[in-house]
Amino acid sequence: MTGTLKRLLTFSAIAGMGLAFVGSAFAAETLDQVMKRRGLTEKDVLAAAKTYTPTGGRDEFIVFSSGGQSGQVLVYGIPSMRILKYIAVFTPEPWQGYGFDDESKAVLAQGRIDGKDINYGDTHHPAISETNGELDGEWLFINDKANPRIAVIDLKDFETKQIVVNPIMKSEHGGAFVTPNTDYVIEATQYAGPFTNDYVPLSEFNEKYRGAVTYWKFDREKGRIDAAKSFSVELPPYSQDLSDAGKLDSDGWSFTNSFCTERYVGGIESGRPPFEAGCSQKDTDFLHVINWKKAAELVAAGKAQRINDHDVLSIETAVAEGILYLIPEPKSPHGVDVSPDGKYIIVAGKLDTHASVYEFSKIKALIDAKDFADKDPYGIPILDLKKSLHTQVQVGLGPLHNQYDSKPCVVYTSIYVDSQVTKWDYCEGKVLDKISVHYNIGHLMSMEGESTKPKGHYLVSLNKLSIDRFNPVGPLHPQNHQLIDISNDKMELLYDMPLPLGEPHYATAIAADKLQPKVRYQTGWDSRTDQKSEFRTLPGRERIERTGDGTVHVYGTLIRSHITPEIIDVEEGETVSLHFTNVERAQDETHGFALRAHNVNLSVEPGKTVSATFKAEKAGVYPYYCTEFCSALHLEMQGYLLIRPKGVAAEGAALKEGQVYAEEDYTKQVKTNTDTQAVIDSVVEYITQRNFKDFPTVVALVEDATDQLNFAADAKKKMEDFAGAKDWQNATLWAQQWFQYQVKAADIGLRAKTYLDQNGAKVVGK
Amino acid sequence: MTGTLKRLLTFSAIAGMGLAFVGSAFAAETLDQVMKRRGLTEKDVLAAAKTYTPTGGRDEFIVFSSGGQSGQVLVYGIPSMRILKYIAVFTPEPWQGYGFDDESKAVLAQGRIDGKDINYGDTHHPAISETNGELDGEWLFINDKANPRIAVIDLKDFETKQIVVNPIMKSEHGGAFVTPNTDYVIEATQYAGPFTNDYVPLSEFNEKYRGAVTYWKFDREKGRIDAAKSFSVELPPYSQDLSDAGKLDSDGWSFTNSFCTERYVGGIESGRPPFEAGCSQKDTDFLHVINWKKAAELVAAGKAQRINDHDVLSIETAVAEGILYLIPEPKSPHGVDVSPDGKYIIVAGKLDTHASVYEFSKIKALIDAKDFADKDPYGIPILDLKKSLHTQVQVGLGPLHNQYDSKPCVVYTSIYVDSQVTKWDYCEGKVLDKISVHYNIGHLMSMEGESTKPKGHYLVSLNKLSIDRFNPVGPLHPQNHQLIDISNDKMELLYDMPLPLGEPHYATAIAADKLQPKVRYQTGWDSRTDQKSEFRTLPGRERIERTGDGTVHVYGTLIRSHITPEIIDVEEGETVSLHFTNVERAQDETHGFALRAHNVNLSVEPGKTVSATFKAEKAGVYPYYCTEFCSALHLEMQGYLLIRPKGVAAEGAALKEGQVYAEEDYTKQVKTNTDTQAVIDSVVEYITQRNFKDFPTVVALVEDATDQLNFAADAKKKMEDFAGAKDWQNATLWAQQWFQYQVKAADIGLRAKTYLDQNGAKVVGK
Repeated sequence: MTGTLKRLLTFSAIAGMGLAFVGSAFAAETLDQVMKRRGLTEKDVLAAAKTYTPTGGRDEFIVFSSGGQSGQVLVYGIPSMRILKYIAVFTPEPWQGYGFDDESKAVLAQGRIDGKDINYGDTHHPAISETNGELDGEWLFINDKANPRIAVIDLKDFETKQIVVNPIMKSEHGGAFVTPNTDYVIEATQYAGPFTNDYVPLSEFNEKYRGAVTYWKFDREKGRIDAAKSFSVELPPYSQDLSDAGKLDSDGWSFTNSFCTERYVGGIESGRPPFEAGCSQKDTDFLHVINWKKAAELVAAGKAQRINDHDVLSIETAVAEGILYLIPEPKSPHGVDVSPDGKYIIVAGKLDTHASVYEFSKIKALIDAKDFADKDPYGIPILDLKKSLHTQVQVGLGPLHNQYDSKPCVVYTSIYVDSQVTKWDYCEGKVLDKISVHYNIGHLMSMEGESTKPKGHYLVSLNKLSIDRFNPVGPLHPQNHQLIDISNDKMELLYDMPLPLGEPHYATAIAADKLQPKVRYQTGWDSRTDQKSEFRTLPGRERIERTGDGTVHVYGTLIRSHITPEIIDVEEGETVSLHFTNVERAQDETHGFALRAHNVNLSVEPGKTVSATFKAEKAGVYPYYCTEFCSALHLEMQGYLLIRPKGVAAEGAALKEGQVYAEEDYTKQVKTNTDTQAVIDSVVEYITQRNFKDFPTVVALVEDATDQLNFAADAKKKMEDFAGAKDWQNATLWAQQWFQYQVKAADIGLRAKTYLDQNGAKVVGK
Repeated sequence: MTGTLKRLLTFSAIAGMGLAFVGSAFAAETLDQVMKRRGLTEKDVLAAAKTYTPTGGRDEFIVFSSGGQSGQVLVYGIPSMRILKYIAVFTPEPWQGYGFDDESKAVLAQGRIDGKDINYGDTHHPAISETNGELDGEWLFINDKANPRIAVIDLKDFETKQIVVNPIMKSEHGGAFVTPNTDYVIEATQYAGPFTNDYVPLSEFNEKYRGAVTYWKFDREKGRIDAAKSFSVELPPYSQDLSDAGKLDSDGWSFTNSFCTERYVGGIESGRPPFEAGCSQKDTDFLHVINWKKAAELVAAGKAQRINDHDVLSIETAVAEGILYLIPEPKSPHGVDVSPDGKYIIVAGKLDTHASVYEFSKIKALIDAKDFADKDPYGIPILDLKKSLHTQVQVGLGPLHNQYDSKPCVVYTSIYVDSQVTKWDYCEGKVLDKISVHYNIGHLMSMEGESTKPKGHYLVSLNKLSIDRFNPVGPLHPQNHQLIDISNDKMELLYDMPLPLGEPHYATAIAADKLQPKVRYQTGWDSRTDQKSEFRTLPGRERIERTGDGTVHVYGTLIRSHITPEIIDVEEGETVSLHFTNVERAQDETHGFALRAHNVNLSVEPGKTVSATFKAEKAGVYPYYCTEFCSALHLEMQGYLLIRPKGVAAEGAALKEGQVYAEEDYTKQVKTNTDTQAVIDSVVEYITQRNFKDFPTVVALVEDATDQLNFAADAKKKMEDFAGAKDWQNATLWAQQWFQYQVKAADIGLRAKTYLDQNGAKVVGK
């Protein structure tokens, strides 16, 4: 092996790879030369080898990252750090047709506040659904801090299926976090507000402003949050922050920290010190400890109040029933993270230098013994800090968030002010290693680090500033996610990844093989309700129907390379409701649909049915077309919406041909097609002589090519009918259409052939 | 060198790098081991070394890629293939505040059609401004195919500054392309339509539907398109496609190709063969050759018609004045690309296997000699194909687009159906090399390949399908941009890059050092008009003013870590107009501003002033906060908008304190601050003892830290005043505020110290 590598390093790389381009005018570089030219160190080359993913290679882990105020979720791979998708969640996004088709508009409409569309979200904390405390890769939840909401994303198709608006909060932060079997999705307040939706002056802050934790019931069978079975626990106006659910030993409990338990209200404009001064004065804030399982029972037993048509357990009830406790925690903490075994809860106090390790058994013992140190002004029992602690460790200036390793007792804490990650042992209470990051790390993320079975290997540092790390792109900088190798004792920086859109707050990573997304929908599928669409149609059944209410329903199909119908003719004032079904079965054969001047831009993946409804307000000519480069004849996948002025009749007359064809045109085209068929036959022979059935990708391609050849046969039949009637115009055009299906079949066949060649297919017996 | 590398390959990498972690429990891998574990070949490692960019490294080229139907432009680096930014253009995007602040709403409003907001675009072809035919990196232009529009993006701040709506087109495609000194931005029709905005039946397609090329006049001094000085040339309804401007020898001319010169109108729903059949029947379409310089003179001479308040040169005038010609071109071409010396025009006919090399001198000679082969049905002279050609080369099935190398006579053509790139010599007319790509390549892009001085090195294959190239993310797949090394005779695939959002059509790359974006704005800057904002304010000058029209103007500032004002108190029914200036000077210190339930989400980069105007419709409590994680006290950067019910008076009364402070609290805080100051002093000493002035990054940090320490001094002064008056409440809080500024200064100081440590700063004489 070393011999081969030495060759790679010292001889022409191309020669070393055995390729036959000796005597080239431009000689290829060796690794040595590349390192010299690009200023790479040996360490860099090692990091490159650990992250570079060759064509067709797969990533080991998939990350779901908040897109911050872009209102989206982004998906990227580890270790390649390549972004695979932005999933539209709270913000309309035309590539996905999100907020442009009727189906996704209905999802966004669920997120309206005071009847108003809110066209963005400030996404913070994504959470993957769990089964027995392990990530299961089925669902993803994410919150909107700005307009308290939670969204549900289906990891079968990476689409947003539901948005729920928090009924009592005016601001939130500590969501989404799930309980170990995804019974509930946790959402905690940030800035206190009145539960009611009316005006309450700030002079009543202490009395009428409140925090809360909402437990959203997730109905896994339906794949939707059940708002009617969800509830909240009222909390004091303490600026609640991140949360986490207990697991194993601590299952049934949840933990929410806080800052500004000073309950300070700023007002720098009128001479008061600002929030930042008043909210950071006390040495400790409060960790909220809630028994959510018992809370759910209390709600079921009718002990909740109804506020805004939502069940809320009051502080008074929560205290009386023994489900709510506070424990001091060092100054303005951010992360609160339950250890994989559920025994410890680590809190990072961002204005302190310590991380505090609470021990659940100690907390439970204090609660059971009613051993309380104090009560807060709202009557909530306060447990003694020291008695609740396992240990405290000095980890650096500005500890922020903690993530667990697969190695026992090992945790990583982000250190904001020092711009470092500290690796430490929370059992023994000692620091193991530190690494510098660039710059000002917020959250960090280990692989499945929030579950009962962290996977180790990698850590990502979600840095808030990138400053000089990348080529400059103007005053608004990308953020920087740095990939760190944590396989060894010493952490090693592997990769800097710019974030091109949005400011991610938190991210979660799952082993790639746990995700099993589909590549197509059942034909005629409404992906937002996950049901057959009532507006689906099949090839040959396309139609335009007018209903009594002045609506023109267009039931159309999309296939390489035409839209049916190609002409849509309506009258000014009519409502137009387009319904398109993509009738392709081939993977990645998405079609788009864009229509001028009507804000209609659809993404129609194979099998999907989508709709777009609008008023035909202005007479005129509106071209439409497929926006996805789907085939060689993609540009010809077009049509016209004609909006006639009121009272002007539709034109039934035949169109004047721009070009007239005679028998010789027909004969020539048929000759071309016959020649083309010979090429196709040779490709078919090539494929079928090989063990193509061993390659699922090729089997799918062959299936698709067969579809195209069937379509070709249909067109050929039409051609023959017209030729029989000596209608050379139509005979020629259908001959051309036959040819076009041949081209599509050839395209697929060549792709299959290339795949077989590159993947070591073998000739099989005839 | 080989010795070192051998060590890297065969020993523990960590040991080899001289780090002192011998006897580690988890041994680090060697390169050999990494290759084995990850299944990497030697070729892969070489590709990794050619693309991997270590932390802080810079890319050589910057790519501006269309974001397709996402309506955005994306920016990425070569060779790292990391996406640096999505620039919002036609689609509102909250992270950038685009479409959320008043200033950018005004830009989007320029793009309204029939008075309606169009909230997406189908961006296709970006073009960087040119000087003498070379890319100058000052401006970027991009088109919207769906709703014919052109946008102007400033490469000083990567922001969209202007959108113009084409006054006569109903669909377009062949834009944006610039003339060699960016006098004009070219936009050509796609699907024909009537120039007027009324209904014209398809029976009048041949007579009343038209194509056109619009020449948008760019006023470089103002950095804006001047619509009044722009004009169009009328063309037949031939589905015009891509365009290119002549250069050097062919300067003054432009070239636009076409498909569907059959002028076929489909109607598959009524039994007619579809567009795809009728639009691909003829063996040739038409290359349009236009003398735009003379056209501009004719317009200046008053020879244009006014249509929709826009100058249009009719076909008749264009023919009579000798500025418009046609040349046959092989079947349904896409790319039309003028060679760096301006002597050749290469057209790729996507339903043909040839690329055709036209020679401008031959075209010019035929025109000068009035040597025409024919006329089209609209009277336009047709030049003979063979007489215009230099050569034709069989490049593969489905040639699509061409890009030039720095090596003379070398061009690369994308081959859609074969999924290949063909490298060939257009002088000699011979194929040099082919490489397979995955899958179905559309456009391709070489470095500055459209200019008079292509830069070679790299080529990007913009593949339309990715199918099995990446981890699956549901039915909607990312696209794949493949980076190819073209330094040598043989092309080598280096990297597969997924495109996570949008379907890019075309991209353009420029040497990174030609871009000089700024890192901050002048204080109080309106970035969309590029003028001082009338709504700017300075620290200490913040104010709330009510105007006679029921508008509450809030002139506020943003700085680490507070928003001024922190309380905004208005009455139901008032219009609220927020104006925030970010008064930071530090690079990357962007602040955001999100307000619940009002669709207000602002991005305020250092120096910028932005506004958001809305009606206070519903009484209630609306928290707001900074959305960018700007500092350790970021979460405390908050405030409340209070909307009082009509007739309810504002509350002037003092707030009740949640926490009361006494002298001992004050004394304790002052002690903390004094200790902190000692730490800061030590960091200052560390920095000033080193040659920090040799590092511009550190100089900027020191400037920023000095700002923070000045703010600290202000807070300290307030503290002392209150302490003097024995007001321990305020004295304690201002002491805390002093401390907060110390923390910010320390944060910056530590960052500077780390930078010096990592960049080899030296101790200088005391």
